[in-house]
Amino acid sequence: MTCGKVSSDFVWALKITTGANIVACAARNLEDAKKFGQKHGIPNCYGSYKELVQDSSVHVVYIGSIHVHHFEHSLLALNHGKHILVEKPMGINRKQTEQIYKLATEKNLYVMEGMWTAFNPTFVKAKSAIDSGVIGEVKFAEINFGVAFPKDIARIWEPQLGGGALLDIGIYPLYGVQLLLGNGDKPIEVKANGFIEGGIDVAGTASLKYPNNRLGVINWNAFVDLPETATIVGTKGKIVINPPYHAPTSVTISPSDGKEETFQFPLPDCPNATWNFTNSVAFTYEAAAVQQDLLAGKKENSTITKLTSQLVADILEDIKSQIGLKYPSEI
Amino acid sequence: MTCGKVSSDFVWALKITTGANIVACAARNLEDAKKFGQKHGIPNCYGSYKELVQDSSVHVVYIGSIHVHHFEHSLLALNHGKHILVEKPMGINRKQTEQIYKLATEKNLYVMEGMWTAFNPTFVKAKSAIDSGVIGEVKFAEINFGVAFPKDIARIWEPQLGGGALLDIGIYPLYGVQLLLGNGDKPIEVKANGFIEGGIDVAGTASLKYPNNRLGVINWNAFVDLPETATIVGTKGKIVINPPYHAPTSVTISPSDGKEETFQFPLPDCPNATWNFTNSVAFTYEAAAVQQDLLAGKKENSTITKLTSQLVADILEDIKSQIGLKYPSEI
Repeated sequence: MTCGKVSSDFVWALKITTGANIVACAARNLEDAKKFGQKHGIPNCYGSYKELVQDSSVHVVYIGSIHVHHFEHSLLALNHGKHILVEKPMGINRKQTEQIYKLATEKNLYVMEGMWTAFNPTFVKAKSAIDSGVIGEVKFAEINFGVAFPKDIARIWEPQLGGGALLDIGIYPLYGVQLLLGNGDKPIEVKANGFIEGGIDVAGTASLKYPNNRLGVINWNAFVDLPETATIVGTKGKIVINPPYHAPTSVTISPSDGKEETFQFPLPDCPNATWNFTNSVAFTYEAAAVQQDLLAGKKENSTITKLTSQLVADILEDIKSQIGLKYPSEI
Repeated sequence: MTCGKVSSDFVWALKITTGANIVACAARNLEDAKKFGQKHGIPNCYGSYKELVQDSSVHVVYIGSIHVHHFEHSLLALNHGKHILVEKPMGINRKQTEQIYKLATEKNLYVMEGMWTAFNPTFVKAKSAIDSGVIGEVKFAEINFGVAFPKDIARIWEPQLGGGALLDIGIYPLYGVQLLLGNGDKPIEVKANGFIEGGIDVAGTASLKYPNNRLGVINWNAFVDLPETATIVGTKGKIVINPPYHAPTSVTISPSDGKEETFQFPLPDCPNATWNFTNSVAFTYEAAAVQQDLLAGKKENSTITKLTSQLVADILEDIKSQIGLKYPSEI
């Protein structure tokens, strides 16, 4: 659903996902859909999203529209009996996220928020190393994501298009801290600072306080390239997911009583692919996870659970309110 | 004044500071002072601080006592007409810091808060590179200082001794952000999160929001070794002061349109010295700065000014109040 840049990258990655079968695509007009379909060899191309969700050969829909349309498109697909994978953020606020999950439950359909980083083997290695206790009790995690976005990127700089840095890139460090440090717990307190300019949030920072003296820090920025690193510190060492954190290929594990080791997870090849974003081939891991879930008859993923997704939506609400961020549709 | 660990390190560094002359030392009892004096070859050793400040050969007093005594010792020295260099933090709260400066002004005496990092050539290089504009407009700075302190270090773990991580190590990142990013400006807003256990602050984090979309983040921790790094990001590149930030020897400058370069500033030798803390020989730069100021007849230093010192004290008050930190003497 949608034939934009991220959807194109997702489709390339789907091509190397064993067992995945791309049967249809849809854009707001038929011409765009046909162009996209031709490029990717997709049989059914539709000029409206409604047509796509009425196609009985479609089993699960990937929603790659801009943030402000995720809600509408998710409801449309669910109401037509389709399982969905929704790009992050699932909604632009907690209420939207909640309603999408509610409808999916009612319809007994699968829904997952597309936080693809969580399925990247480098991230999985970091998480399993943490869980194994190799760095002791985790007490601190800090993740940065900042990009000096050119001024012509409408999805970032246009408030009407749901622009801003928090929901586009800030959500990555937030999910990371929640999964690697928070470990299912709700933060005791969130404290955020940030800047709003021209109706969009241009830069921000937040700290998350968890039980047992755990502190998480996330930084996001649309002005400058922050070193895109995740640093997780425990009582017995540290783990660093090396840049680019959101689609990483290496992690360095440094137990204080052992040898520092860097683990490389090279991304697979995808012949002839033309990518819009960095390391997008890693979408294949997310797609495979959705496929496995569906084949197993699951209605939610075990990593990006409904609870985590809603907790992240809660925290985003809190941050938005603290930095004074509202989207035009929320005013 | 005091013959403890930090004073010992300071005295070793003074020995290689050209023109510095150590005439006297004092401890709470004569035996300790004599032992310290013998070790360091100091002619006058006193069993009380009052005797030291009455010694007419003493020109400037270094106050190396634990935080909770800085105030009392500073007033004692100033009231006896001595210039002072007070270890950081100058006081345990804003009121103490203010009163010390007030008395120094009344007595026309020199006073400086001993934030020695600011005089380290590596730090000076970072600051001058920032000021030269090599990384464009600075928008983000983040500095961490965390040490897995052994439980037998009373100065950290005893509330009665002014224990806690913020005033002991958190003040370093705070000063760094204020000097490298804040550049004399007062933060628009400070947001802090932290933990208090057994009456002391064990871990914390704070963000500082400055005009012109500048965000600073500081992290301090008494449980875990945080990578002790300063990262300063501008619109045209970044600068990293490599560990250990508080007494560094190298800085990496990475302009986005140029070549990354690491500058090394090896510390001088100090024959026969036995150090208590990492890279303490760098105290020599701070001592030299005080000496130059005094020879020039100045009453305050141009880097660690009264204004900066009071601003830092203000921010510390704000953080303390947000994380619920109070020293026994403040309750």
